[in-house]
Parts: sequence; C-alpha cells; structure tokens
Amino acid sequence: MAGGIGSRFWPLSTTNVPKQFLDILGVGKTLIQLTFERMKKICPVENIYIVTNAQYETVVLQQLPELKAEQVLKEPMRKNTAPCIAYGNAVIKQRNPQANILVTPSDHLILNETAFANVINAGLKIVAENDFLLTIGIKPSRPDTGYGYIQLGKQFDEVNNIIVNKVKTFTEKPELEMAKIFLKSGDFFWNAGIFMWSLKSIDAAFKEHLPEVATLFYDAEKDEKGNIIFAYKTERDVSDTATLNSIYAQSPSVSIDYGVMEKSNNVYVLQSDFGWSDLGTWGALYENTSKDYAENALIGHDIMMYDSKNCVVSMPAGKIAIIEGLDGYIVVDSSDKLLICRREDEQRIRQFVNELKMKKGEAYV
Amino acid sequence: MAGGIGSRFWPLSTTNVPKQFLDILGVGKTLIQLTFERMKKICPVENIYIVTNAQYETVVLQQLPELKAEQVLKEPMRKNTAPCIAYGNAVIKQRNPQANILVTPSDHLILNETAFANVINAGLKIVAENDFLLTIGIKPSRPDTGYGYIQLGKQFDEVNNIIVNKVKTFTEKPELEMAKIFLKSGDFFWNAGIFMWSLKSIDAAFKEHLPEVATLFYDAEKDEKGNIIFAYKTERDVSDTATLNSIYAQSPSVSIDYGVMEKSNNVYVLQSDFGWSDLGTWGALYENTSKDYAENALIGHDIMMYDSKNCVVSMPAGKIAIIEGLDGYIVVDSSDKLLICRREDEQRIRQFVNELKMKKGEAYV
Repeated sequence: MAGGIGSRFWPLSTTNVPKQFLDILGVGKTLIQLTFERMKKICPVENIYIVTNAQYETVVLQQLPELKAEQVLKEPMRKNTAPCIAYGNAVIKQRNPQANILVTPSDHLILNETAFANVINAGLKIVAENDFLLTIGIKPSRPDTGYGYIQLGKQFDEVNNIIVNKVKTFTEKPELEMAKIFLKSGDFFWNAGIFMWSLKSIDAAFKEHLPEVATLFYDAEKDEKGNIIFAYKTERDVSDTATLNSIYAQSPSVSIDYGVMEKSNNVYVLQSDFGWSDLGTWGALYENTSKDYAENALIGHDIMMYDSKNCVVSMPAGKIAIIEGLDGYIVVDSSDKLLICRREDEQRIRQFVNELKMKKGEAYV
Repeated sequence: MAGGIGSRFWPLSTTNVPKQFLDILGVGKTLIQLTFERMKKICPVENIYIVTNAQYETVVLQQLPELKAEQVLKEPMRKNTAPCIAYGNAVIKQRNPQANILVTPSDHLILNETAFANVINAGLKIVAENDFLLTIGIKPSRPDTGYGYIQLGKQFDEVNNIIVNKVKTFTEKPELEMAKIFLKSGDFFWNAGIFMWSLKSIDAAFKEHLPEVATLFYDAEKDEKGNIIFAYKTERDVSDTATLNSIYAQSPSVSIDYGVMEKSNNVYVLQSDFGWSDLGTWGALYENTSKDYAENALIGHDIMMYDSKNCVVSMPAGKIAIIEGLDGYIVVDSSDKLLICRREDEQRIRQFVNELKMKKGEAYV
C-alpha cells in the first residue's frame, strides 16, 4: 500500500512526493525501496504488487525498476485501505485464487529484518492452514498515544517461537493515562497495520462485512440457492481504466480496520518485537534515528549544532545549517519550504498545513 | 565605499555577494541601490564614485546601470577605509582639485531622506568654507553597544538648523553601563562613519597623519623649502592596474577613523537625527524594520508565525516558512544555507562562520 500522502510529515512529505518515496531516514534509500527489499526476502519479485494512486505510477517505477508496469495497481482516487486491498485481491485472484497474501504499508520502519522475516513466515504458514485474518502486534516500549492498540485474547498457538493470540479488541489511539495502563498490563500490543490472510479468508470477510465493496470489485452473482457469490467477469476487468474509475467512484471510503478487522470473529495477532515504527510523525522519526551526544537527531551532512539539544533536524543534500540555542524542536528544510516547530506541538503541523493550503493553494502541500 | 564583506550578516551576506548588494530589507532594492538613489539627490550621477573590491565590479555595474565603468574604482585588495578614501581622492583630484567630498558607506539604512539631504547640504556648505574634517553624529535612541560614539565639544555654528560641534573624543564601542551613561549625558552621538571634507583638507590630513599612504597614492615631492608636497605623476597613474596593485600591496591596512579622524584637530560633527542604522548586525536590522503584532520582523512574503515573538526571519522569494514556538530568534534562509540563532547570541555568528570555513572551505562563507 503506497497511496498515502503523509501530511503529518510536511514539509518533507507533500502530495506530489509523499513520505514513502523519500529517503526520510537519510540512509540513501526511500522508504518504499526499503520495504521492497524486505519483501524480496519473503517472496519472488513477480509476486509483489504496489497499490498506489495513479499519480505515483512514474515514481514507483523509477524507484523500483525491478517491477513491471502491471505490478503497479493504480487507484484513480483515494478511498482508504479497504478498496485498496479489494483491488489487490481482484488482481491476485485472477492469477492465483489459492494465494496467501501479506499486506503492508510501504512507509514504515523495521529495524530487525531477520526477526521481521521470521514473524512473516510464521504468519503465512498460519493463514495457509487457518481461516484467519492475521495482524501483527508490536510489543510496546512506551505509552505511545499515536498508535492504535490490540488487546490479546486467548493464546492459539506458537509457531517458530512466535506466539499467536486471538484478538480481544482493537482500540483507537488512547489518552496518555490509558496508554500507561495498556503498557503496564502487558496485554496490549501496537497495531502495526500489517496483515496476512489467504485470499479465500479475506474474500469471505469482504463478502460478509463490506459486501458493497466486494460487489464492486468482484461482481456479484447468485448461485442456484440464491446466495451471493463473487466472481470475476470480463466487464469488471480491473485492468480496464474506465471500469476501475467507475468502481472507485461508487466505492465507499473505508479502512480495512474499521470495515473488516473490527467486525470479524476470526482475527488473530502475532506477538512481535522487531523494532518497528510507522514513522507517522517527526516524533516517531526522532525516536527511531541515531542521535548525537546532545540527543539531536540530525538528518543531513552539514548540520552544525551549538548549545542545542533534543532536536530533530532534516536538511536536503548540499544545505548547510547552523543552529544555536534550540531545545526540543523540529527543523526541516525542503527546498522551497521551511518548518520550525516544537516537538511537543507537532500535532499542530496538520493545522499549519491546512492554513497554508487555504493561503497558497496546493502548491506547497 | 562598497568593498566590505558583512560577515556578521551571514548567511545572507557572503564574500561573493556581500550585504551592500542584497535587498536585505525586502523592499525590492539592494542597499547600494538605495544609497545611490540618496546620492543622486545630492550631486550629479557623474560625480559619484564607487570604491569597491575588484571582484564586485560586475555586480556594481549591474545594480547601478547609470554608472560608467570608470566611476567604479576597483581595489585589488582589502586595506580598510583609509586607502579606499585615498584612492578616491587621487581620482577626484585629477578631475577637480577644488572638489568637496562626501564619503559614505553603501550599506547603511537611512529612513528620513529629506532630513539626511538637509544634513549633507549643510555639511558640504561648511566644508567648502572651512578646513574641517566633518563627520555625522546620530542622536542615540538607546544605549547601543555596537556603535562607536562621538563626544561633542564646543558648538561651532548652526547651519540650516543643523548644529555643528567640534569633536571632543571618539570612543570605541562601549560596555552597556558606559553606553547608558553616554545616552543619559546627551553629549554622545553615534558615529555614522559618514564624512565630508574638501579635497584640500583631507589631502592635508593624510599628509600629516598617514604620510605613507599619501605618498603611495599621490607620490611625494619636495617643494623649494624642503616640505613634502603631494602631486600626481604619470607613473603613479591609479587607472593603471599594475600601478594600483603595487600601491595597494605596499599600503598599510588602516581605517580612516584610526588613521586620520582620531588624530586630527579639525574634526567637527553635525548633530543629526534622520533615522539611521549601520545595519551591521541582525539586531540592528531587527530594530529598524517594521514588526508584526508579536514584535516579529518578517522579511519575505510567505512567513507564517505561530506562538512566536521577537524574532527576525528572512526568507528568499518563493520560500514558505512555518515557524512555531520561537521567542527572540534569528532565522535566515539563503538558498544553500540556514541559520537559526538566539538574537542575544548573534555575536557568535562570526565564530560559527569561521568554524564553517574550517570545515567546508570558502564555499559557504
């Protein structure tokens, strides 16, 4: 999934070039390139599909030259994650109705790739054998209020030393006090938004919980007993642009979490701990990058800090920064945009960007 | 005089394009253009000479297209203000030995141009009639520790409502306590570094106090009584590059203040109050530009300030800045350079720039 616009990462992330296509960590590779490399260890390249907004087709193919054009599934509009996954399902179903699927965001950070591969391989084994919707829970290291949490239910199994539990509840981003209780209890894991399932299981879940989406993407027919069945017909060929436009125009905008996961009874979770961040905010980036002796996270080659600490500074290549006397700030320069903001106030960035949009139009957002 | 490099104004001002060639106030004209326009009200364009480093010839002629090439006097190296003025004298003397001269920096701010013209016209009248070295004193509005001060001596005259005093002393930049005493006394004026004199008077002063400079620029001969006289000889033609190189190579580096003004007995001062700043520092710029309701001085069109006050922010055209949570900072973006620094620490900018030079060479300074 590579269609997001990462507005909380302004000014680096913009609608034209959102976060997944940026080397936001300063490591020489973009987030989608890092994600692609992780995936290549798990399955052959020809089995990888990128679902993204049509406007990003060129950048995807530039950044991932191993992909063929038909592996980039172009969404004509943004309708959240459920239609995105349904689109992928439709394409995969034409190729292999028996497929097991891993669904992952393209803009997350994963530090321990071996541990990650272990978890994924265990998960794919589980979903091949069980009608499960499987999600990944990350053992929390702090009472983060920026993540959703998964409450563990009864343990189901242990595969490759990975414990699998039934999911008791999904919870939205909690208040700090609640997050502290979650952390202390040991029963709550961060929801990483990474999913595994067989195509059969996710098809059945769409059919049950989001039939309007399923109908659009798969076409509905009735069997001899009057039950709706889902099958692909030529006139619903998702490789046809006009058909796809029509499908997306009619589809509701709904997340897979709200539309399917929270409503299903066969949702399970893998207890994981591989160093993960959704890199959803500058704070998340700060937490996950190396820092200097004064706890400054410096992304860029020529950043000179004086009497400054606890800052995250990101400069483009070739830009010199001299920064004096800042404690706990975000400083990000991105060609024609500069942001300076207290780290503790970063939730205001969306407000700033909205006001910028009102003032200057789409050019800078 | 347009040869300075304005290092305290980094990163806007650099050796390649120093402050006088920048639109540092964001008004659409560079400081030297503003200075030139002021001078055009005082004398014909053909009487204006720019003394600058040879490397700035092109930019001077670009920014002041009314000038002819021979009006730009190109110094082959930097030797402070006394040689700069001697060079100007030598050129002017060839054209008009009876000239009265106004010497001015090209990078100062003057707010009330009518009051300025009144002071200058009074001054030119005085030096035409008296063997005076005349300087301009600015009535101080605050105990500024960044300026030199002139102590008033006995009143000499009043011309066009401008009071002329003999100068008692020149003082270097004072400590704050001393500056407060200066301000309270009413006897101390800021030294604006703007001078008026007849060519005869300044020639005589060079002859007496800086004979080694005078000899280099004017050539020395002895009259029949054995006194040194100064005259121009063909082999000292300052329009000849090799001769000029030789003169500058041999000249000491010395300021007109130290070399002449502080040692002369015929120094007078005009009490002035026309809204002046040397724009020598970001603090001086801050004091002299308009501010928003939160006392932020914003130079640039698209600077959005949130919960910030007492800042000076300068952005190039087309650059968006969103700044949150800063109090009392300098923020300056200049293409490949960014500076963030507490206003109270701006004297450290020179140190930062020196360290940058050691680290990265001359490219960014």
